[in-house]
Amino acid sequence: MKNLRYFLFLLAFLPSLAFSQNLAEKLGYSSDTKLLIIHADDLGVSHSENSATFEALKNGLVNSTSMMVPVAWSAEAAAMAQEIPDLDIGIHITLTNEWEDFNWGPEAGRTAVPGLANQMGHMYADCGPVAINASPEEVEIEIRAQIKAANQMGITPTHLDSHMGCIFYGRPEYLASYLKIAQELKIPAMINQQMIDNIVSPNSLLFAGLNVENFPLVDQLFMAEPKDYEAGMEAYYTNSLNNLTSGLNVILIHLAFDDEEMNAVTKGHDTYHAPWRQADYDFFTSEKARELLKKNKVQLVTWREVGKTM
Amino acid sequence: MKNLRYFLFLLAFLPSLAFSQNLAEKLGYSSDTKLLIIHADDLGVSHSENSATFEALKNGLVNSTSMMVPVAWSAEAAAMAQEIPDLDIGIHITLTNEWEDFNWGPEAGRTAVPGLANQMGHMYADCGPVAINASPEEVEIEIRAQIKAANQMGITPTHLDSHMGCIFYGRPEYLASYLKIAQELKIPAMINQQMIDNIVSPNSLLFAGLNVENFPLVDQLFMAEPKDYEAGMEAYYTNSLNNLTSGLNVILIHLAFDDEEMNAVTKGHDTYHAPWRQADYDFFTSEKARELLKKNKVQLVTWREVGKTM
Repeated sequence: MKNLRYFLFLLAFLPSLAFSQNLAEKLGYSSDTKLLIIHADDLGVSHSENSATFEALKNGLVNSTSMMVPVAWSAEAAAMAQEIPDLDIGIHITLTNEWEDFNWGPEAGRTAVPGLANQMGHMYADCGPVAINASPEEVEIEIRAQIKAANQMGITPTHLDSHMGCIFYGRPEYLASYLKIAQELKIPAMINQQMIDNIVSPNSLLFAGLNVENFPLVDQLFMAEPKDYEAGMEAYYTNSLNNLTSGLNVILIHLAFDDEEMNAVTKGHDTYHAPWRQADYDFFTSEKARELLKKNKVQLVTWREVGKTM
Repeated sequence: MKNLRYFLFLLAFLPSLAFSQNLAEKLGYSSDTKLLIIHADDLGVSHSENSATFEALKNGLVNSTSMMVPVAWSAEAAAMAQEIPDLDIGIHITLTNEWEDFNWGPEAGRTAVPGLANQMGHMYADCGPVAINASPEEVEIEIRAQIKAANQMGITPTHLDSHMGCIFYGRPEYLASYLKIAQELKIPAMINQQMIDNIVSPNSLLFAGLNVENFPLVDQLFMAEPKDYEAGMEAYYTNSLNNLTSGLNVILIHLAFDDEEMNAVTKGHDTYHAPWRQADYDFFTSEKARELLKKNKVQLVTWREVGKTM
């Protein structure tokens, strides 16, 4: 009788015992494992980006990517994706068009979501005008349109994330739509504690129907900034790989070749431009990066794997 | 008194005397002049197309072009156009997206003109599905949207023509919209006697409000076909230039470089593909072409000049 009561007591606590496992343990690793996703953003933006990203997925260290849907080359990205079984490929929710002479408009069409298009029908160049002009309803329509179009190209996304972070830097409703849709699809959406503290918590009513706590949080997010590019990408990424901590680390990179097309796409920009993307490609296909991962006992994981813990 | 009556008699006939002038005479040349427009289609479709077309406009023999508006690189074409004063640049009315992995949708947006978009939101690959799915109203909305977007990029079109001829091979109402809009803009729209006989005359009610007879007609239209490409472009264009007749001749060409980007755009096609466009570029920037124009006493004219006779 005493034993039975003890057993029932244990049973009652099992869910919270399971909940107390951290992400690494849920994935079958020891609790202090340095998990890492090496994630190539902006797939689909150009032929150069597609070629470099798939080269790095096949022969380099990149193990996850996300595609921009409303862009001219997204169908090529989707076709290339068929060549890698179980590829980790998300939707890089795109609300902006940051390049001068290479343009796209909203997937849902400017008539359906006029707040996401400038007077030329292109998306705005940065997140500010998006937040001013695009209603939460329009952003939700556009997110759904991008996912639907990707589905029609044969892509079942493994995760969601946000081009230029406009989902995070826009209105809190955008984040609510993003998480709601990810929850519907039962896939992770990239999010961290900072976003919970700064966007979710102060706007709890907007997130009321969502199990936000169910989303795996990114513990450390690395993305090179202009000063890092100036100081040299090898130094930045070497430092990043030497400073991974236990938990979920994500390195966001942008891969393309420093070629004619990519220079034309990124014309007039001196950051995130063709040579920057070539430097990302060079590092994450290098022997040095491979050795750093080994030396630092890094466990590569994909968003698909992480999603299974939800 | 007799003289005055004679003078009035002459005055009464002046308009018809003017009307009896042919196009060459209206332009100030002798009636048997071989007028020629060397016209680069598809400007705006890619960076490669833009680079090659402007190179040939600046340093080659090409003297007119028309831009595809709903494509990612149209803004680059519009920016490059600013570098050539009084450039002859029309709108290459685009109702199709013939490439597999490089895509665009209607400028007006799929919600406004659903009949111009497939389920991925892209335009159909050829004219047939356009004619089946796109209502005359949708095509008129789309033509106006493309012209408006070009205006917003700083382009005042000198003429209209039709990508893949879908305006001519679609429904007769498409041609009526095309001519009506050109008439409103007081610019020429590419048309020939065959189109008058086969589309306008049998559907005269559709064209009732239009001064169709006011449009300058193309007397001879040259465009290389697959058999010409196989036999060699130099032979085809040499023969074309040796066989120009008096009146308005138009040679339609497609210029791009046989580079990585253009091969990716035209992937899976063995006509109008990257090497075809390089061959067009090579001929119309060659010394041989220049000599043939001279030898055949060809008078180059632009659509802008031709339009002044309307």
